[in-house]
Amino acid sequence: MTVATYVNPVPPTRGTSYADVTEEQQRVEQTLVDKVVGSFDSCENPRLKELMVSLVRHLHSFVRTTRLTEEEWGAAINFLTESGKITTDVRQEFILLSDTLGISMQTINVNNRAYKQATEATVFGPFFVEDSPEIELGADMSFGAPGEPCWVEGTVTDTDGRPLAGARIEVWEADEDGLYDVQYDADHRAARAHLYTDIDGSYKFWGLTPTPYPIPNDGPVGMMLDSVGRSPLRAAHLHFMVSHDACRTLVTHIFPSDDPIGPGDTVFGHKDSLVKDFQRQPAASPTPDGRLLDATWSTVRFDVVLAPVDA
Amino acid sequence: MTVATYVNPVPPTRGTSYADVTEEQQRVEQTLVDKVVGSFDSCENPRLKELMVSLVRHLHSFVRTTRLTEEEWGAAINFLTESGKITTDVRQEFILLSDTLGISMQTINVNNRAYKQATEATVFGPFFVEDSPEIELGADMSFGAPGEPCWVEGTVTDTDGRPLAGARIEVWEADEDGLYDVQYDADHRAARAHLYTDIDGSYKFWGLTPTPYPIPNDGPVGMMLDSVGRSPLRAAHLHFMVSHDACRTLVTHIFPSDDPIGPGDTVFGHKDSLVKDFQRQPAASPTPDGRLLDATWSTVRFDVVLAPVDA
Ligand SMILES: [Fe+2]
Ligand SMILES: [Fe+2]
Repeated sequence: MTVATYVNPVPPTRGTSYADVTEEQQRVEQTLVDKVVGSFDSCENPRLKELMVSLVRHLHSFVRTTRLTEEEWGAAINFLTESGKITTDVRQEFILLSDTLGISMQTINVNNRAYKQATEATVFGPFFVEDSPEIELGADMSFGAPGEPCWVEGTVTDTDGRPLAGARIEVWEADEDGLYDVQYDADHRAARAHLYTDIDGSYKFWGLTPTPYPIPNDGPVGMMLDSVGRSPLRAAHLHFMVSHDACRTLVTHIFPSDDPIGPGDTVFGHKDSLVKDFQRQPAASPTPDGRLLDATWSTVRFDVVLAPVDA
Repeated sequence: MTVATYVNPVPPTRGTSYADVTEEQQRVEQTLVDKVVGSFDSCENPRLKELMVSLVRHLHSFVRTTRLTEEEWGAAINFLTESGKITTDVRQEFILLSDTLGISMQTINVNNRAYKQATEATVFGPFFVEDSPEIELGADMSFGAPGEPCWVEGTVTDTDGRPLAGARIEVWEADEDGLYDVQYDADHRAARAHLYTDIDGSYKFWGLTPTPYPIPNDGPVGMMLDSVGRSPLRAAHLHFMVSHDACRTLVTHIFPSDDPIGPGDTVFGHKDSLVKDFQRQPAASPTPDGRLLDATWSTVRFDVVLAPVDA
């Protein structure tokens, strides 16, 4: 197969920078932008038109202000092509790209603006599954996943402080080896569960003390992070999704205060308001539910405040 | 397999538009942009750093100014994922996306700025191959591909009008069914060739009168064009790549003046200076090389002017 790559072999004009661009050249470039924007004139969906026009303007501005070379354009095409090749039902390189460029987190920001003292949202992550097992209040969501036991408790209230009974809480996390259940086997379920708050809005369960883990970094995104000197590590975290009628569903994490990664989280999900004190407890100290564990454990409190659905 | 798509199920906050965004919310969003930009601080390649920072700023601006919803973000991820799935060695959906958003043409513009009266460049296209057959001056490059015969002639000179002897000319085009040789079979070669200019800089060959053709439109890019009411048709064209020592290699097309698609070219490659008059000739009228063809044919002149390599 000898079909050439699509990279124009013309060497880049030397010495270009945006400051060097003549007025005539700027006119040529702007005329093209206007023409591409105009090609969406007959789009009947006004929102789609708005998105396409904005995307075109931003991408053209990127090409023009950086004076992107044809070789660099080819590298970008190859990056997307390789990202497509590595993506499967359980490996999503385009989401990793969005995450590591902060686009996922910015989209969360845009759609979950602050409301009074409601708990802040953060990235959803690729490891949620729909069919987590249900557990009773106080039960263990680890289902044998390796790691230090962690007693998690708190309340779910609205922004007026009213307890929310029967709020659904989904929790999921990586084990101490940095892996989610589905990374071992798509059908494996461990270190994830859902439960419901009590009549007073309280909840409690056993989980695992979170540990940092790298995002999958054997593909183009891992190469990008390596090329720019960035770590693939996510700050340690425990995922929560909390929902209740008449409230905005909250997707968030909590982060241990003693994790050195913390604000260096490679997907920019770390927020100060979500940092919690995971208190380490010695082996054989009595647990809140009256057990004596033969190893260290930890405890953390997380009080969730849900915004109204129309906030 | 039940791993959920990565789309955060939180419904978008209602009524958002950039004008509604509070100062506090703008600060939250700008803080994230600054943090992502700062993550490239230790990149040791200054050009890579410049490109990543510019890309991040432009993409975040797109998300913020459009108030991109989480559902729309998910649609974008799906678009890229499906583009990855359909891309093969002979089908390049990411290039089609770049082409149809005018990004390919803008990259050409940026790297081939106007120089005196040098011939303008346009898009390279995905159908060039490295191993075209060589033909003699005046020979036929169609190699049996169906279409109306077209006599093409002209000169290659530099911007001072000096003829360039031995300039290499690569020519390739679709047949009258709108297909390139490699679309029939990756190893098929027809309607493509290379030849060299004579001692006086002149060239001549038999090709085919160009006809419009649709870009491959059975994938995500075709769906996008359809959704926004755009045609997948390219303006009719004949590809040229002309190279000579000490000159900037030129990648361009010529476009028939009577093609109704013309400026509506879906990849924005059409330029007024590249429109040529393909003169239709009746059957049995004598050709420049003294033949009598039993059907209509056409003739076109294209004088190529190459910029100096350091222009
Ligand atoms: Fe996670
Ligand atoms: Fe073409």
